[in-house]
Amino acid sequence: MEQEVMNRVMEEVMRRLGGASSAAVPGSGLAGIGVTEFVGTAIGDTIGLVIANLEPRIVEKLGWDPRFRSVGIISDRVGAGPQIMAADEAVKATNTEVVLLELPRDTKGGAGHGCLILLGAEDVSDARRAVEVALKDLERTFGDVYADEAGHLEFQYTARASYACHKAFGLIVGAPAGIGVVMTDIALKSAEVEMLFYSTPTKGCTYTNEVVMGFTGDSGAVRQAVIAAREVGLKLLSAMGSKPSSVSGKPYI
Amino acid sequence: MEQEVMNRVMEEVMRRLGGASSAAVPGSGLAGIGVTEFVGTAIGDTIGLVIANLEPRIVEKLGWDPRFRSVGIISDRVGAGPQIMAADEAVKATNTEVVLLELPRDTKGGAGHGCLILLGAEDVSDARRAVEVALKDLERTFGDVYADEAGHLEFQYTARASYACHKAFGLIVGAPAGIGVVMTDIALKSAEVEMLFYSTPTKGCTYTNEVVMGFTGDSGAVRQAVIAAREVGLKLLSAMGSKPSSVSGKPYI
Amino acid sequence: MEQEVMNRVMEEVMRRLGGASSAAVPGSGLAGIGVTEFVGTAIGDTIGLVIANLEPRIVEKLGWDPRFRSVGIISDRVGAGPQIMAADEAVKATNTEVVLLELPRDTKGGAGHGCLILLGAEDVSDARRAVEVALKDLERTFGDVYADEAGHLEFQYTARASYACHKAFGLIVGAPAGIGVVMTDIALKSAEVEMLFYSTPTKGCTYTNEVVMGFTGDSGAVRQAVIAAREVGLKLLSAMGSKPSSVSGKPYI
Repeated sequence: MEQEVMNRVMEEVMRRLGGASSAAVPGSGLAGIGVTEFVGTAIGDTIGLVIANLEPRIVEKLGWDPRFRSVGIISDRVGAGPQIMAADEAVKATNTEVVLLELPRDTKGGAGHGCLILLGAEDVSDARRAVEVALKDLERTFGDVYADEAGHLEFQYTARASYACHKAFGLIVGAPAGIGVVMTDIALKSAEVEMLFYSTPTKGCTYTNEVVMGFTGDSGAVRQAVIAAREVGLKLLSAMGSKPSSVSGKPYI
Repeated sequence: MEQEVMNRVMEEVMRRLGGASSAAVPGSGLAGIGVTEFVGTAIGDTIGLVIANLEPRIVEKLGWDPRFRSVGIISDRVGAGPQIMAADEAVKATNTEVVLLELPRDTKGGAGHGCLILLGAEDVSDARRAVEVALKDLERTFGDVYADEAGHLEFQYTARASYACHKAFGLIVGAPAGIGVVMTDIALKSAEVEMLFYSTPTKGCTYTNEVVMGFTGDSGAVRQAVIAAREVGLKLLSAMGSKPSSVSGKPYI
Repeated sequence: MEQEVMNRVMEEVMRRLGGASSAAVPGSGLAGIGVTEFVGTAIGDTIGLVIANLEPRIVEKLGWDPRFRSVGIISDRVGAGPQIMAADEAVKATNTEVVLLELPRDTKGGAGHGCLILLGAEDVSDARRAVEVALKDLERTFGDVYADEAGHLEFQYTARASYACHKAFGLIVGAPAGIGVVMTDIALKSAEVEMLFYSTPTKGCTYTNEVVMGFTGDSGAVRQAVIAAREVGLKLLSAMGSKPSSVSGKPYI
């Protein structure tokens, strides 16, 4: 009985705390809540919204081409990489552009970022469709995000990112940051890949406890680099806490 | 019995975590603790302090007019808007000035700011009185702060803020930030109001997961804009988690 | 029985949350985990790592003298002062230099910093030894870190810091920041000491809710200033929450 009480309490605690692994609301929330702007919610405490005709004073303030009057909004508490990758899929699938991308320091007490992405469109149906595509893709892009109470690791791989010039793109994130240093070192040594960017807590990250590297190369090489880094990262994070598990439960790399 | 254990455990957990809604210590702490600088504590994990004659090397370092030798201190873990509004009341009621205002990234794992406000005075009794006024006012200014495990919303309204040029002043905060985008869009469309400032996570906020807008106008219009935004914000935040409730339990707008 | 369940649940909750006082893994983790880079873990959610020959593209990106090919890594979620003091001991004891020091906003939902320190060496055995020295020293340097659910206080004292020019060095940290203002005021008034640096949430800190002061002077004066500040700080933090306790349980000042 005690164990049962304990389990129920832990579930309740984790639900209230809304940590990455528990607050996930996979693909839910497409039902109406009486707000026309609402599109849905998804894993990573993500909400998807759409505004048909954003107030021109806000557009002017945030500073983008005013012909993008409609905006799709991807906003979340937990994660930036998964949402950015999902938004990239959405941009490729619809007639939209990323008009704003800001990364708060968040993850609800975790070591990483949250995310605010605005997708501009001339037509509201494009904006809405983009948000729907992104929300749906989050279950996939959270597949290789691993978290435990000590930190998190993230891996992304795509054979054709819009920002990677017709090459494959890989992303490695390690938190705490020291694990990121080791993982990125291993990735660069394990295959012929080229560094695109390298961020540390105060240079490139918004004071998160992360090292983040984006890189490119032939698809086989990028994949190999990601897998080599992941193997070591999971062992290191395990040494600090419990065994980290995939946030969505479905690794894809 | 199980339910009772569960309730007690949840209370204890929430107390230890000190979340916004639980760690509130409304108006308590005016009793002495054997430290002359101590004035009291209040909701939002706020502490009020006073220093009769602040060390000149600190005044010089922080850089304000040295005739303000006395300082009242409002320092908190949870919230910035409520403390700033309360400090504004205190400044209007006493012979003090805001000599320092800094917003850490805090809320104890939440999506927002904490706050450090120093109120300078030539006389220590003014500084102390200002802190007392501010602490007492916090229960009111937290009335339209709504929080749940997914985020928070804040609304402030005053017919006569010291910084709003004889007009009414309204403040809208939404976290996660995307909800703030929708709420501010609705506010600007729902009444004849003028934007004073608009902050996003990395522009104007200290990496919080918020969109913040201050605005002004006739008192009826400002009030109407706040109420329209609040109605939609509460629905959107509810869609991400449980129904958000007023932090102090006493909405005032 | 209820009490027993409650205690077990609280332990489990605190373990999962990995707060400063519970996630401490004092001196553990020196056993192998099958990763050559792993050195060990320690209190403050700290991991120690070593890379024999860091990828030159990372060295170039982070920008230090390439003759430091080996790096020791001290990376943690909770605390910066204790890790910096411990790294200073390590640098004095080995042939290494601090080549990178960055302070994320962290402490797992607490009010302070985490830390990423890279110690460069020409020889991997020096880098490894430095990490071992630092990890071992953390139990001492966490001795005068006091935390409760409302905030934390940190005090450091050394008769001979490498960066304090042959004088004694003292460090005072208060969170929330207002407590730091009072403590540093008291420290400067209580003994003949000289301010080295003074940091507030947005000036010198990475948006933490802290005031931090480093200072120097004769060893007796520095010690006296630290002790005077600690006495008041502990009372103030207690007024906001429960009685704060030493993170390692072994105060040294």
